[in-house]
Amino acid sequence: MNILYIMYDQLRFDYLSCAGHPHLHTPNFDRVAAMGVRFSNAYIQSPICGSSRMSSYTGRYVSSHGAAWNGYPLRVGELTMGDHLRKAGMACWLIGKTHMKADAEGMARLGLAPDSVIGARQAECGFDVWIRDDGLWGYGPDGFYDEKRSPYNEYLKAQGYEGENPWADFANAGVTDGQIASGWMFQNADKPANIREEHSETPWLTDRTIDFIEQAEGPWCAHVSYIKPHWPFIVPAPYHDMYGENHVPAPLRHDVEREDAHPVFGAYMQNAISSAFQRDEVRQKVIPAYMGLIKQCDDQLGRLLDYLEQTDRMKETMIVLTSDHGDYLGDHWMGEKELFHEQSVKVPLIVYDPRRQADATRGTVCDALVESIDLAPTFVEAAGGKVADHILEGRALTPWLHGETPDWRSYAISEYDFSATSVCVKLGLEPRDARLFMVFDGRFKLIHAEGGFRPMLFDLETDPEEFHDLAKTDAHQAEIDRLYGYLAQWGRRLSQRVTKSEDDIKAMRGKSGRRGILPFLYDGSEVPEEWIQKYVGPAPKWPD
Amino acid sequence: MNILYIMYDQLRFDYLSCAGHPHLHTPNFDRVAAMGVRFSNAYIQSPICGSSRMSSYTGRYVSSHGAAWNGYPLRVGELTMGDHLRKAGMACWLIGKTHMKADAEGMARLGLAPDSVIGARQAECGFDVWIRDDGLWGYGPDGFYDEKRSPYNEYLKAQGYEGENPWADFANAGVTDGQIASGWMFQNADKPANIREEHSETPWLTDRTIDFIEQAEGPWCAHVSYIKPHWPFIVPAPYHDMYGENHVPAPLRHDVEREDAHPVFGAYMQNAISSAFQRDEVRQKVIPAYMGLIKQCDDQLGRLLDYLEQTDRMKETMIVLTSDHGDYLGDHWMGEKELFHEQSVKVPLIVYDPRRQADATRGTVCDALVESIDLAPTFVEAAGGKVADHILEGRALTPWLHGETPDWRSYAISEYDFSATSVCVKLGLEPRDARLFMVFDGRFKLIHAEGGFRPMLFDLETDPEEFHDLAKTDAHQAEIDRLYGYLAQWGRRLSQRVTKSEDDIKAMRGKSGRRGILPFLYDGSEVPEEWIQKYVGPAPKWPD
Repeated sequence: MNILYIMYDQLRFDYLSCAGHPHLHTPNFDRVAAMGVRFSNAYIQSPICGSSRMSSYTGRYVSSHGAAWNGYPLRVGELTMGDHLRKAGMACWLIGKTHMKADAEGMARLGLAPDSVIGARQAECGFDVWIRDDGLWGYGPDGFYDEKRSPYNEYLKAQGYEGENPWADFANAGVTDGQIASGWMFQNADKPANIREEHSETPWLTDRTIDFIEQAEGPWCAHVSYIKPHWPFIVPAPYHDMYGENHVPAPLRHDVEREDAHPVFGAYMQNAISSAFQRDEVRQKVIPAYMGLIKQCDDQLGRLLDYLEQTDRMKETMIVLTSDHGDYLGDHWMGEKELFHEQSVKVPLIVYDPRRQADATRGTVCDALVESIDLAPTFVEAAGGKVADHILEGRALTPWLHGETPDWRSYAISEYDFSATSVCVKLGLEPRDARLFMVFDGRFKLIHAEGGFRPMLFDLETDPEEFHDLAKTDAHQAEIDRLYGYLAQWGRRLSQRVTKSEDDIKAMRGKSGRRGILPFLYDGSEVPEEWIQKYVGPAPKWPD
Repeated sequence: MNILYIMYDQLRFDYLSCAGHPHLHTPNFDRVAAMGVRFSNAYIQSPICGSSRMSSYTGRYVSSHGAAWNGYPLRVGELTMGDHLRKAGMACWLIGKTHMKADAEGMARLGLAPDSVIGARQAECGFDVWIRDDGLWGYGPDGFYDEKRSPYNEYLKAQGYEGENPWADFANAGVTDGQIASGWMFQNADKPANIREEHSETPWLTDRTIDFIEQAEGPWCAHVSYIKPHWPFIVPAPYHDMYGENHVPAPLRHDVEREDAHPVFGAYMQNAISSAFQRDEVRQKVIPAYMGLIKQCDDQLGRLLDYLEQTDRMKETMIVLTSDHGDYLGDHWMGEKELFHEQSVKVPLIVYDPRRQADATRGTVCDALVESIDLAPTFVEAAGGKVADHILEGRALTPWLHGETPDWRSYAISEYDFSATSVCVKLGLEPRDARLFMVFDGRFKLIHAEGGFRPMLFDLETDPEEFHDLAKTDAHQAEIDRLYGYLAQWGRRLSQRVTKSEDDIKAMRGKSGRRGILPFLYDGSEVPEEWIQKYVGPAPKWPD
């Protein structure tokens, strides 16, 4: 079996027709959902690209792998999906974005050259690289945000697009009166991007994916990782005007959210991006572009699915569609992600498993509480490997895919480290105290903040929109305590004993006696004679 | 400045005359205490050799470094005292025991050769090796317990001691009627070891230490790590009969401890070593030998101190005397260590700091709650380095040594993973559930056990002997909850974000705007013109 592990960036769980979107028709996402299982309660481990991805790729919580924000390097030696899959005999390739930052200091300390096979995998969070392009080729007075080479910019230049950064000037800009209308500016979100549609980022990466599959042999996992529908919010024709103001829902927000708001939420509601998304004209420009970007993703997914069918690969290819986090889009007075409302922390997750055992679940929806760290062990099982559950903290989804009802987790965890953000500065926190933890049991969602703040609590049964923070009063202390109990249990989890498996431990028991370690004998009668035979006999004399 | 970081193995906190022992006179330990500070509340992070040491060497809790029991490898890449000190310009050498097991699988994965400088340091928990000898040369029908080379056995052979394992046949055995009287058997603990005293393990390692100092240049830290007074309990003349039955205190134990005992404690009280130490004849043989071993350590410490004085090195050498854990010696119906009564989890810690700033504290006792992980940062400061407090979890003791009263921790943590032991099997636990956590706030000591057991609680103010487990009833729920709150807080600690310091994070803030990442602009007026100058200008045309 092969695995096509497709990740979109910043795709909200509810912007798909199979998830109930009233205006956005995504027949190809729906097609995979009809062939597989759609998980309707899938949570990422951190509402930020880099950390969410490092959790997906390592199968471990953020506090376990430590890459707590974008650009915080994943420590050298941390095991990833690639390591686990290769051990199980499956190659693991990257096509697109990871947001990985290499631990250059750690690699230098261990003498690992970035251009060696081992070093390159360390630098690429365990993937072999078919194409690496993180899709954020911002450039300003201090230079490029991302100093690596950009295969996408190289591609555009090879197609004849001119200039230093065609990503910015063509793919992510429109034209107004002969001038560049940058996609960074929301007022331009309704313009068509200044690029042929087939050269824009999503089709480009789809082409590269088909190139990869064409030549790939043996069992492989390909992480196809699109930058879209992530900002900049601009999309080429015909997607730029498929949706309009009449497709933009009213923002899900309530004045009560701003009354006695939790200080961290309060600060977030006031930052630049939230302020922007509180403006109707921003939402009315951006959301149609966001929908157009998703529609383009859906069409490109259709190309991939058709290709798999035409080349008779569908029956041997597991397909996973998911995202690294959502986007508030003005809901809860917020823009972007970073907090734990459903719009940010819940993601689409659709899994098509070609195995016969999955026939019974095709086209079904599973509401189990799943986490993005569950994918790595799912893939290890699909590869025929044994899940190293002393390292991988997620749980394989295989039983759900195969119609079983396993014993399952009672709560999902997500974390956010905002130490590098302006909110940390505004609240006067030291970096180590700028950390949030979400515990969600399927009904109640607790958010704990370090730094001496009260928690937040939402009851999604009585308040599915999450407007009413129940921790503003003392009335729900019992639920708060119960969820804090889960968080405490999670805090004691076994996450770093990565060099000994449960089986290794069982196998090592009782070995020391037969190797002569006997710290409990009075006279030797306590053990078989054989154990002590090397300790008896005529006493030798010491040398003169 | 240089650092002589001396560790004894299994030395109880109260078996020194400066700590109040009524019969054991240790003038050389007392001499260092008179020159420095004796910490009377020093706790190790795990009551077992290997894990305690890995915490001392990494400056991190066991759940942070993951080497949770003897022989559980320290994961490749984990930073140690040696890494931190070398960065601060100080060499870091090993002379004696570490109980380190290399992460051979991790090293192979990263292509690290054990015979390279980098690989050797990885394999030796960051030390450069002057002498490595773990001092447990047990051998039985399945061979040697420790399959490495034994420098001490090689030394004995070079002195003319015969046989395969002179460690066992001479250094750790007496003679009865011409037969080997193994030191493994408690009945032989009163016999003189069959070795010249100057060839026994403690003088041998002292010789090696003086050899090292003689040739050492530049600032260095030497971890002088004696195997004694660790079992086997046998000592050469004249130490074998310096103490007798009249020096053996009555065991500190109480019948109430066996009534409704916590299941884990109950199982430990019934294991082979506890059963042995419940016999008076065992204590009466073993404790005088244990005292003799300590007396020999004290005499050898005197040799080292005299050497430092005679060579005028005392004023430039920090001296640290400590241990990796204690020994129950029959107290609490227990032998060995492994649980959290003071006899096991508290260690001696004496620090002589030659700096002028320490003059005010010479000869004083400090009762602050300190942990063995505090040594690594203390050494980094002594080396003139900056403590990497995003990696090191301990806190430098420097302020206490210099007469200040810093803001300090509210509780000490210790952990024990008994997954590889017979107690785990007896209680029917899976390895991951065989874990204990101690939280001690200076008065109350809570022990939490995974696996669904109740906790244990002791009040050391009203019950300094720790006979009365207050968690047998509901009467102390408030204290239990309070200490569980500390444990939960500790569980959320920042322990794996090891690739970004607090300063790194502060320095990275606000950089992305000037590198063209601007996900919040409506029309560009929100930012300085310079930030967006690369996004404006005449729109280029796409290629035909």
